[in-house]
Amino acid sequence: MPFSYTRTIHFPDTDAAGVVFFARYLSICHEAYEESLAAAGIPLATFFSDQGVVIPIAKSEATYLRPLVCGDKLRVEVTPTRLSENSFALDTVIWKIGPSDKRAAVARTVHVCISSTTRERLPLPTALAAWLDAK
Amino acid sequence: MPFSYTRTIHFPDTDAAGVVFFARYLSICHEAYEESLAAAGIPLATFFSDQGVVIPIAKSEATYLRPLVCGDKLRVEVTPTRLSENSFALDTVIWKIGPSDKRAAVARTVHVCISSTTRERLPLPTALAAWLDAK
Amino acid sequence: MPFSYTRTIHFPDTDAAGVVFFARYLSICHEAYEESLAAAGIPLATFFSDQGVVIPIAKSEATYLRPLVCGDKLRVEVTPTRLSENSFALDTVIWKIGPSDKRAAVARTVHVCISSTTRERLPLPTALAAWLDAK
Amino acid sequence: MPFSYTRTIHFPDTDAAGVVFFARYLSICHEAYEESLAAAGIPLATFFSDQGVVIPIAKSEATYLRPLVCGDKLRVEVTPTRLSENSFALDTVIWKIGPSDKRAAVARTVHVCISSTTRERLPLPTALAAWLDAK
Repeated sequence: MPFSYTRTIHFPDTDAAGVVFFARYLSICHEAYEESLAAAGIPLATFFSDQGVVIPIAKSEATYLRPLVCGDKLRVEVTPTRLSENSFALDTVIWKIGPSDKRAAVARTVHVCISSTTRERLPLPTALAAWLDAK
Repeated sequence: MPFSYTRTIHFPDTDAAGVVFFARYLSICHEAYEESLAAAGIPLATFFSDQGVVIPIAKSEATYLRPLVCGDKLRVEVTPTRLSENSFALDTVIWKIGPSDKRAAVARTVHVCISSTTRERLPLPTALAAWLDAK
Repeated sequence: MPFSYTRTIHFPDTDAAGVVFFARYLSICHEAYEESLAAAGIPLATFFSDQGVVIPIAKSEATYLRPLVCGDKLRVEVTPTRLSENSFALDTVIWKIGPSDKRAAVARTVHVCISSTTRERLPLPTALAAWLDAK
Repeated sequence: MPFSYTRTIHFPDTDAAGVVFFARYLSICHEAYEESLAAAGIPLATFFSDQGVVIPIAKSEATYLRPLVCGDKLRVEVTPTRLSENSFALDTVIWKIGPSDKRAAVARTVHVCISSTTRERLPLPTALAAWLDAK
């Protein structure tokens, strides 16, 4: 079952076409990932800072299905999948909440654990591996 | 009594110093303003688009008191004050929630109602005036 | 030959990991697209506003190859390809400028021309079609 | 004589009112500050990261005079003033370039040098003091 995060579209999320800028959908996906980690007890402030081990996003793919405007309510669902001992993927669906919910975007991001100094691959941290295995 | 909005700091809010970028505090103040309008039944999608009448921010002042990091929980309190038939101010306090809440920033923004074509001052829209008078 | 745009990484582009946030790479790709249109004489203020015809991004794909930090100099190369009478793709390479330039990211975005009211596909505007055919 | 930085407004700078969001003017002021430091030979990647000594912005004030739209060209002028051995101010004017240049905003930011661990005030770093004194 995916982790679920709710979010309202705010004015700074929008652009001069009156809707949410495409890259901002990916930021919203990242927020849902953060909330999923926080719900699993992982402290975000240290997790996302550079402590020698970092887990950058290596790839992203997204399909944008519906425009979003200021005030829209979203439900964002995240499903993680382990890819290797160093990497995992997140499949995220952004739902626009309404009389019947509609998909506003689907995205996949691939995350790879590396050393921030040598850029060599490292095993995923224990807490993250536990979060992946719990899903 | 001020309107109150809660918010979590997310990774895209932060900068390379590891904390929230100063201008982002002002975006967060704006989010609280939006939520206060929405709570009063004002439809945000049309309110903030250019429909001939716009209410841009003419001035901002902020004092930044505490750094904020990814995962921090905020309570944002907004108190509006009418300044004239064309303008109002918002006094916003961003509280960092903790064992004892601490002020992370205080800000004042001044909003002026104008025609988007002539840039001349116009009376505040009725729904906004009602929102101001209800506070 | 691709259109080329230069850009410096600024502090608000970075996040708490000390590097540019992944979604921001896509914003930088969009800036290069805008500069390419401007160089072809297309007025951006009206092009990107909603005048009944809009050209949203339907898909994006990106591979992030290198971290970028504050002060880094970029060369962003954009190559457009027409896909149909309603759509085109942009292939963008973000180069980190150095003693030898290195690719920091490659991205593809797919743009589809539609009516902003009916969401039905429309032929690309003449100026945009001319820009595509000139490449 | 102020330091001068040129900038084009891009689509991700705008919001659903069709113009640049007020907080973004302050980000643009910060970019000009960065460029002024870089022109003085100060390496930005380390300057703005947390190396024990940080120089957060303690206050900001801005007056927004003119809307800015996608494609607008700006000249941003920064004048620094030392306030104490720990602090300085930047007075920034954002000019919209045109047949006759017009001020789009004026802003003042106050920057205070502190320890990132104890939050106590520290003398400004030598390179920064030299930059201030050269102005």
